[in-house]
Amino acid sequence: MITGKNFIGFTPSANGTKTYKTFNPQTNVENEDVFTEATSEEINQAVALATEAFKTFSKTSGTDKAAFLNAIADEIMALETLVETYCKESGLPEGRAMGERGRTVGQLRAFANLVTEGSWVEATIDTAQPAREPMPKPDLRKMNIGLGPVVVFGASNFPLAYSTAGGDTAAALAAGCPVIVKSHPMHAGTGELIASAVIKAAKKTNMPDGVFSNINSSGIEVGQQLVSHPGVKAVGFTGSIRGGRALYDLAGQREEPIPVFAEMGSVNPVVMLPKALEEKSEAWAKTYASSITLGTGQFCTNPGLLFGVKSDALTQFVDVLAKEIVEIAPSCMLHPNIKGAYDKNKDRALQQEAITVVANYEGDVKPNYAQQTVITVDGATFLENTTLHQELFGPFSMVVQCESLEELEHIIYKLEGQLTGTLLAAEGEAETCPEIVNAVQNRVGRIIFNGVPTGVEVCPAMVHGGPYPASTDSRFTAVGTQSIKRWVRPFSYQDWPENLLPEALQDANPLGVLRLVNGVETRDKI
Amino acid sequence: MITGKNFIGFTPSANGTKTYKTFNPQTNVENEDVFTEATSEEINQAVALATEAFKTFSKTSGTDKAAFLNAIADEIMALETLVETYCKESGLPEGRAMGERGRTVGQLRAFANLVTEGSWVEATIDTAQPAREPMPKPDLRKMNIGLGPVVVFGASNFPLAYSTAGGDTAAALAAGCPVIVKSHPMHAGTGELIASAVIKAAKKTNMPDGVFSNINSSGIEVGQQLVSHPGVKAVGFTGSIRGGRALYDLAGQREEPIPVFAEMGSVNPVVMLPKALEEKSEAWAKTYASSITLGTGQFCTNPGLLFGVKSDALTQFVDVLAKEIVEIAPSCMLHPNIKGAYDKNKDRALQQEAITVVANYEGDVKPNYAQQTVITVDGATFLENTTLHQELFGPFSMVVQCESLEELEHIIYKLEGQLTGTLLAAEGEAETCPEIVNAVQNRVGRIIFNGVPTGVEVCPAMVHGGPYPASTDSRFTAVGTQSIKRWVRPFSYQDWPENLLPEALQDANPLGVLRLVNGVETRDKI
Repeated sequence: MITGKNFIGFTPSANGTKTYKTFNPQTNVENEDVFTEATSEEINQAVALATEAFKTFSKTSGTDKAAFLNAIADEIMALETLVETYCKESGLPEGRAMGERGRTVGQLRAFANLVTEGSWVEATIDTAQPAREPMPKPDLRKMNIGLGPVVVFGASNFPLAYSTAGGDTAAALAAGCPVIVKSHPMHAGTGELIASAVIKAAKKTNMPDGVFSNINSSGIEVGQQLVSHPGVKAVGFTGSIRGGRALYDLAGQREEPIPVFAEMGSVNPVVMLPKALEEKSEAWAKTYASSITLGTGQFCTNPGLLFGVKSDALTQFVDVLAKEIVEIAPSCMLHPNIKGAYDKNKDRALQQEAITVVANYEGDVKPNYAQQTVITVDGATFLENTTLHQELFGPFSMVVQCESLEELEHIIYKLEGQLTGTLLAAEGEAETCPEIVNAVQNRVGRIIFNGVPTGVEVCPAMVHGGPYPASTDSRFTAVGTQSIKRWVRPFSYQDWPENLLPEALQDANPLGVLRLVNGVETRDKI
Repeated sequence: MITGKNFIGFTPSANGTKTYKTFNPQTNVENEDVFTEATSEEINQAVALATEAFKTFSKTSGTDKAAFLNAIADEIMALETLVETYCKESGLPEGRAMGERGRTVGQLRAFANLVTEGSWVEATIDTAQPAREPMPKPDLRKMNIGLGPVVVFGASNFPLAYSTAGGDTAAALAAGCPVIVKSHPMHAGTGELIASAVIKAAKKTNMPDGVFSNINSSGIEVGQQLVSHPGVKAVGFTGSIRGGRALYDLAGQREEPIPVFAEMGSVNPVVMLPKALEEKSEAWAKTYASSITLGTGQFCTNPGLLFGVKSDALTQFVDVLAKEIVEIAPSCMLHPNIKGAYDKNKDRALQQEAITVVANYEGDVKPNYAQQTVITVDGATFLENTTLHQELFGPFSMVVQCESLEELEHIIYKLEGQLTGTLLAAEGEAETCPEIVNAVQNRVGRIIFNGVPTGVEVCPAMVHGGPYPASTDSRFTAVGTQSIKRWVRPFSYQDWPENLLPEALQDANPLGVLRLVNGVETRDKI
């Protein structure tokens, strides 16, 4: 079933000589399938096909794109060995695989609904005023169109939902942009299965060859070639700050720079206000013990940084958190490399001066299983030592014990950008510290009240993004249907003949989309 | 009236020692006022004030921001020496000054209306579903908020409408972002007058000190310091490709990269289809003689490149264009440097092999007046010689005579990105060549039917932007109220208490804005 080949458009291809395998972290052995890295020539072919496909795919109707997206969802559900392959390439449990598959399929169908309805193009019409003085006003009609071929780099920690046919791919296809996936080497088999489903769906729904390609690669050269290729017009990436920044820089150095939306690191600060801890320190400690270890701490919204003001209640919170978190059974990380990075980065954190280790799972664990750890540090030390500000991917968290709310506010402003921030507050308590709420808002894309940051709802009101380095462009979200805006540009027709206009801009509004016509939102015809 | 000082927030300041003057290109002498370049310390103060001002200004209500924007418009209209100063710093005629002032004031009022109405925040609400299985759905509410302090670099060719309080500034203030203007040295006096109007308006409407600063500078160092400053969160620029790209690169190299929206070069290709020329070659030639020389060719939408297929009608078009364009009286350019660049770049173009000069104004002209020129070249030569693809800022145009429509299409795909493209077609003719329409669309932000690209209507359906290098990010427009999107990011509140939510997201919808509530657009309360 798994061939190890690339998909260069519709064509399986393996002309290269560099091969690699995936790894099963649960059994601690390599998987059997052999994957062949794409050659430079194969990459050029994929981009050429995508460029040609864009000419027709960018004009494809919403209904037809929706049929394609729904067919991808159907084909994914029909893949017989998907869950099994997913588990053996990620070490994640079957329940997670099935949940993530559901989310992936749900995202594809959500984008199908979005383009079927059609208002996402933001049709805007200002009709002509030929008699206006001193100059006649022309007829202007604007809508969103796709940017061109998009390269997607999937995430190691979401082999389905943020990978081959995940959010970035679904959004780009919905926008009318052909997609070239740089397959993640840790789940190349899962990627190939999903890619085969996309190709099947494309053929069934008569999409052009080149609308989708899947490129194998185990190093960085293939990704670099893709991002540097003049035919590529945008890039989506989910992963490390180092990786995302490298691609961002590369794209910026092109003769024609292109947008790179990279969703990267985040430590997701949680601010625990004094009364909230006085009232519920034990309950919050238990809740956070779970959130910190959820998915072996391998979520980008993992709460890695907890802030409180020194008090008995904070001490109690730390004690209970420390006690609870080591009760949780350790679980498997995605790959030995990720486990290795976790141990190395944790060692470095534990070697910093003036930190206190309050919890450290000390029982024996299987290979690639992560031991959860919590440390504390005071505000001044944290502020000085920026090593402690960095994301530590895994089941690790740090409680920063501040002298005062003023110090806490000051520290928040010094943090790098974050995906999320969370406020724990008693009834009426948040009202008393608007400065802290402001400070958190300044640094994050989403703010949560009395909850945990883990769990990212896929809905229009979600923002998954934030100030750098949470993302490379805080003006967009990576999750939810609004993420389509990353891959589109507004385009304006001036005095264009009615019969040549796209349907969304025609007087009769045959698609019935919501439009801004002469300043008024309406679904009426003109 | 003109002091030559910077405005560091509300405070006039001139601590530096580097001074400069503006120049009157009509009289060919320096103007008298002496401007003092800002010091590094003054720049830091301006950014610090802006950072502090952002904390409150970002939360200012739409009504209050509108009062500020309208007050700026009022104060600009009350400036007694504005038109006179504008003319003596630009060489542009009084009528143009008054027209541009009207446009500037109109833009400010349009943004005032936008933020008064309020729907621009794109409020999106997904209400909670506590009973959802397997996980409860949280309440999520999203809206656009300002990015932070924005630096604006004004354009030499629009001393009012795209400069100190021009489109970029109006959009940023509307978004709740403090603005620091890097004053254009060619119209520093005009800039200071406008800045004084902004400061007056800010004080009258109780805006925070630091909401606006105006920084004098005659070189590149001040701009570099501003773009590199960690407190600056976005940059708007209108000008040359070299200048815009340098700032874009600088912003990309920051530890925290920031968005730079630069509107740069464009040659605005015009495709003249065969029948259109057969029917109306003379009329189009006359129309284009005017468009090419309008404003001494100093518009970013100037038609610098005209494409046709070799025919008697194309020859006639060229003949009439050549004859008509030299009948037009030459006019003054903005500055000796701009006239110098025009002459130098034109000389280079005229020295290229296999071009033919068909029109070249040969009468005597006053200093800084530009002589209009038209050349022709065949398609193959044009394609090979990329020197001919570059923008030549001034009253110059080139007719590319192609062998066939296929060659024409091929050439269009090879062009760099453009602000506009224009199609001249006879009745029913555009329908016969969808490939050419596609090719033009691929390369531009706005496509015009049977018209001229000069003239940029300020309205919601306008797109002024386009693929690189027309702009650094084709996903945004620089003109029209939608340009506010360059300076905002979506922000999401999860399970946030109703009384702490911004008005636009409260259940009762007290602002009455259009919102997407659980997938449905509505102005209703929840």
